[in-house]
Amino acid sequence: MPAPSPHSRLSADGPVLDGIPEHGRVPRYYAVKVELLAVIAELGEGAVLPTERELCERFEVSRATVRQAVGELVLEGKLSRRQGSGTYVAGPKLVQPLALAGSTAGPRRQGIRPGRAVITLERRPAGSALAADLRVTSDAEVFHIERVLLADEERVGLESTYLLADRFPGLLDAFDPACLSGVVVHGAEERVETVLATPREALLIGTNPALPMLLTHRVAWGPDGTPFERARSLYRGDRLSFLTRLGRAD
Amino acid sequence: MPAPSPHSRLSADGPVLDGIPEHGRVPRYYAVKVELLAVIAELGEGAVLPTERELCERFEVSRATVRQAVGELVLEGKLSRRQGSGTYVAGPKLVQPLALAGSTAGPRRQGIRPGRAVITLERRPAGSALAADLRVTSDAEVFHIERVLLADEERVGLESTYLLADRFPGLLDAFDPACLSGVVVHGAEERVETVLATPREALLIGTNPALPMLLTHRVAWGPDGTPFERARSLYRGDRLSFLTRLGRAD
Repeated sequence: MPAPSPHSRLSADGPVLDGIPEHGRVPRYYAVKVELLAVIAELGEGAVLPTERELCERFEVSRATVRQAVGELVLEGKLSRRQGSGTYVAGPKLVQPLALAGSTAGPRRQGIRPGRAVITLERRPAGSALAADLRVTSDAEVFHIERVLLADEERVGLESTYLLADRFPGLLDAFDPACLSGVVVHGAEERVETVLATPREALLIGTNPALPMLLTHRVAWGPDGTPFERARSLYRGDRLSFLTRLGRAD
Repeated sequence: MPAPSPHSRLSADGPVLDGIPEHGRVPRYYAVKVELLAVIAELGEGAVLPTERELCERFEVSRATVRQAVGELVLEGKLSRRQGSGTYVAGPKLVQPLALAGSTAGPRRQGIRPGRAVITLERRPAGSALAADLRVTSDAEVFHIERVLLADEERVGLESTYLLADRFPGLLDAFDPACLSGVVVHGAEERVETVLATPREALLIGTNPALPMLLTHRVAWGPDGTPFERARSLYRGDRLSFLTRLGRAD
């Protein structure tokens, strides 16, 4: 199947219609944003955006207006900021399949090398909320594994996984940080929403707090139907999208 | 399967860990945000939040700090603003299944009445981007149907659907705005990302521009495997989450 075109957001109805509320006024920052999208398309991935001052002169608007337009494009992943080297045109968002296989399958498909860096690995009591999801008592022990998700060395997310300890007796001894082998996932339920990064998350992922993130909550179960894993994965909303396939594949 | 608990975002690691970057400083606005989450839980859905001034006194912080904390909670759908009546505690996010059946199935499950209000219905040439997705020439005609998505009369999203006109010959004559009957969807590919609302979208959905939204791009095909529909659906990120089930259901 063809992928939807990346610029369909603006091209479907044309940029002007998107910006015009019914009363006919286009906010100035939005007009600049639309003009910047054309500049971005022309410059191409990796190119450095003209400076704020140059953009003010070019569009004959104030610095605040340019900042709002550029700021939104950064939040949406069309532009990216690199400390000390200005603002440049970002690449397309990574596509992450919503699949049982989990988060390493996706980026690999696009020729991007996925990775995970473990930052927490501990054994602890489940506590009440987790115990309810995993259908155990709150003093049942779980492994908590927290990993930063990488795509070609770039930090793109943060995954927090809780596993029932009695199902993985040797996990702490033989732990391979790259993968959890021997886990038979029979099914899972995954909920996707958009949230803002907390300061700790932003620091671990190396981004700004309050950036819109994609969050998945996942409960997975084995062949016997009882849940054994809960995971909470946070992905940079400016760098990732999810892909799901419905119905029969052809 | 149990649904992941709505407050697991903070309770899994405890609010303090979420807020503490490695260097140990919790930003003040974030500390207030965590305190406000406790206030919200205590007040319960629909209750009115104390005024900004009261919150400043209670937490001994500036107005700007309270505003940042409240503003983030509004963006995340924990709080909601109603013109003239202040800020109140919002209900849980609606859960929308990512399913072939489309967007009416979800809210109904939770006892919420879904609806759609047509705002555009036109016949027009596909244009190049759409033509590529639907594997037709760019002068092939499509129906464009734009609908505001409702949940119990509340506007929660905006759906823009393009259908190949020659597959739906009588559509404009016998159009039932509530549903598209007689469409056999065999499979679909859906991409989910987070974007910011454009001014026009914000006006149509009745929200603020630049609110984080969930966007789905969908291409659907019939039993013969050829695509006949492209849809772009935008949902309020503060009001909706998506649910997907992976593997075999038990």
